[in-house]
Amino acid sequence: MSAPQINIKRLNSQDAGFKETLLSSLSLPMGDDEAIDLAVARILAQVQSQGDEALVALTKQFDRLDVANVSDLVLTRAELEQAYLDLSPEQKNALDIAAVRVRAYHEVQKVEAGCHSWEYVEADGTRLGQKVTALDRVGIYVPGGKAAYPSSVLMNAIPAKVAGVKEVIMVVPTPDGARNPLVLAAAWLAGVDQVFTIGGAQAVGALAYGTNTVPSVDKIVGPGNAYVAAAKRKVFGTVGIDMIAGPSEILILCDGTTNPDWIAMDLFSQAEHDELAQSILLCPDAQFIERVQESINRLLPEMPRKKVIETSLTNRALLIQVQDMSEACEIANAIAAEHLEICTLEPRKWAEQIRHAGAIFMGNYTSESLGDYCAGPNHVLPTARTARFSSPLGVYDFIKRSSMIEVSEAGAQTLGAVASTLAHGEGLQAHARAAEMRLKK
Amino acid sequence: MSAPQINIKRLNSQDAGFKETLLSSLSLPMGDDEAIDLAVARILAQVQSQGDEALVALTKQFDRLDVANVSDLVLTRAELEQAYLDLSPEQKNALDIAAVRVRAYHEVQKVEAGCHSWEYVEADGTRLGQKVTALDRVGIYVPGGKAAYPSSVLMNAIPAKVAGVKEVIMVVPTPDGARNPLVLAAAWLAGVDQVFTIGGAQAVGALAYGTNTVPSVDKIVGPGNAYVAAAKRKVFGTVGIDMIAGPSEILILCDGTTNPDWIAMDLFSQAEHDELAQSILLCPDAQFIERVQESINRLLPEMPRKKVIETSLTNRALLIQVQDMSEACEIANAIAAEHLEICTLEPRKWAEQIRHAGAIFMGNYTSESLGDYCAGPNHVLPTARTARFSSPLGVYDFIKRSSMIEVSEAGAQTLGAVASTLAHGEGLQAHARAAEMRLKK
Repeated sequence: MSAPQINIKRLNSQDAGFKETLLSSLSLPMGDDEAIDLAVARILAQVQSQGDEALVALTKQFDRLDVANVSDLVLTRAELEQAYLDLSPEQKNALDIAAVRVRAYHEVQKVEAGCHSWEYVEADGTRLGQKVTALDRVGIYVPGGKAAYPSSVLMNAIPAKVAGVKEVIMVVPTPDGARNPLVLAAAWLAGVDQVFTIGGAQAVGALAYGTNTVPSVDKIVGPGNAYVAAAKRKVFGTVGIDMIAGPSEILILCDGTTNPDWIAMDLFSQAEHDELAQSILLCPDAQFIERVQESINRLLPEMPRKKVIETSLTNRALLIQVQDMSEACEIANAIAAEHLEICTLEPRKWAEQIRHAGAIFMGNYTSESLGDYCAGPNHVLPTARTARFSSPLGVYDFIKRSSMIEVSEAGAQTLGAVASTLAHGEGLQAHARAAEMRLKK
Repeated sequence: MSAPQINIKRLNSQDAGFKETLLSSLSLPMGDDEAIDLAVARILAQVQSQGDEALVALTKQFDRLDVANVSDLVLTRAELEQAYLDLSPEQKNALDIAAVRVRAYHEVQKVEAGCHSWEYVEADGTRLGQKVTALDRVGIYVPGGKAAYPSSVLMNAIPAKVAGVKEVIMVVPTPDGARNPLVLAAAWLAGVDQVFTIGGAQAVGALAYGTNTVPSVDKIVGPGNAYVAAAKRKVFGTVGIDMIAGPSEILILCDGTTNPDWIAMDLFSQAEHDELAQSILLCPDAQFIERVQESINRLLPEMPRKKVIETSLTNRALLIQVQDMSEACEIANAIAAEHLEICTLEPRKWAEQIRHAGAIFMGNYTSESLGDYCAGPNHVLPTARTARFSSPLGVYDFIKRSSMIEVSEAGAQTLGAVASTLAHGEGLQAHARAAEMRLKK
């Protein structure tokens, strides 16, 4: 009995118009968000004007939770700890190891990625530098329901805590009162300070503006549905936000020396996220691409999420034959994928040619799923080609810098003359006078 | 003849409702931007669909420049150099010194603020780290007309070049063909690679989408009017953007030991930017506040921009009497000002208590205007209390990071078991299988 053929789009880098076809295959039609924007604007206004009262009403409306006060929507640290203690030994152990490894990686990142204050002194005594401070209070949005990921709790909360954020406030909807014990356990393990069982645009509004019960935060991070994303865009400026994530993507560069079943499963592991996720293979070996297609056909029927995988692969996946690995790297830079696997001999050689990718997984043993859960690096990564200009979530997203300037009396003489000339050139005479007043007569 | 009394709002931290009054004095009513948003959406759509042709038409419409091709809107490097060579020796010297100092500061920042790749190796051979890459191509928006600031060209272009950005593309409108020689000279000095004399939302669209003549960039930085700001918000996601700046602000903490004329002029130098700029003084000494008011009354009539200054001070300035310097620091943290001057004995002692500010100017000789032009640190700073979560423009804004993960065969055994458990817990079986396939039987 032959396995059903899954129809995946094939491209060859030598095809006429290849570059255009590729780029148009990457982009998604923009949804018409006007209705969502309007609904979100109303919810935010309601939360801003009515505070706790609005949270109770909206949580009853959207999550079917009928409570008298927002205080009934608070989870205590004791409840989080109990969720952790109730896990199976295997789950507890896995979550422990993941948390330890994510923390260790971000501790190194804090040092290496320059999250420290610095200063230097010039010959005339003028001192210049920057002071680094952690954010005071951060909010983490955690989706409830079907996409409730404990790993995301670790990935968002741990870098904040490593950065030195004093208060991490988590919001997570619990529709019909259904709580996810793994999510609560992860919150306990990551050191989340307070949890509210609220969600949607109303939770984003509560974190941005504050209510009597929910404290206002300085930045909101974490994934959510279209309403949550629209709300985050809307409150940006009042608070900081992380990126607005698009559907997940994997790009695999393979020279044909990998077990094709591994490649097929790595493509699946992206496709199973949702129907809009995108899985792409670049390979110079036509026969190997054929073998991957066979693996896909054979393995797909076994997968519990086969429907989602099949839709995603049929609509969005690409199997692309390239001339050689150098060309594969060039194409990878144009794609700027969220996840890039380099499944080749000498993967580091090719990694050197990569300029744009959220995370680079090198070698056949580095399946993307290891990075998703427990390798240590963050799994919150730039999607939709934004790796051209943005970075994985990190400790650096939970600190900010203040420039430090202390000009000596001698420094004010030389700098004052320069500032005066330039300020007059810009027609800003008070700027000039402020500098001139510090000059000795 | 007594000088006219400028009416500036006085507060005392002991007033009932002080905190609320202060916070409401900081915020500006949100403008109704619907008309601007709609106009900008149309312009962006026109540029995206018609490219160069749209740029020619819109530049004719808005800047009254009638050219046949976009190539007539290109300034050559030779023209930039000529603008520099034509400056007076004094201006040339001032611009040279400013450029050298801004470059020197950002060179140190590149090292200290962690703009380098790093990696560590675990006991089982697994390697984890991050790769730092400069952005490929950056666009700088420079306003034309009344707010054309050569210093802004230096502050935006130099950090990009220090970061290693290969191509810096500048756009600057030249209404009626009027070019600002200082702006062009600054572009030459900062190493800008290409200049187009286009502006407004159409310039932002050209940089974001690219046309036949204007190359698409990865990030757009630089200040602009409401149309430019709206266009930047709109193209965010397609390209990166810097922050959307609000009106400029200065907060001065003074213990009463400074020449009150200096304080008055520093308040002016913010107020002269525009009517919405905000200048605030915090001081524990009521008599000194009185002396500053006298200096303001006496000095204002001399200022060429006295009308702007008077409107700004009358509508938005605050003179606040505090209990002591510790309380001043607390209030400063609540305000989170763009520019914070600490004009006191022992300014560093108070700076230690400051958590939120864009730039901190310490000591009586450090007028904010020195920082605006030539001290070295960037003058693009977070406004409107966003210093709670964001930073001065810096080298770090022109690089991005890719996580690097290379799991050894041994590492895949321990991590694979953990990932498998967690993936099953999240109902993502393909993730689990991808990890399990790498386990030795």
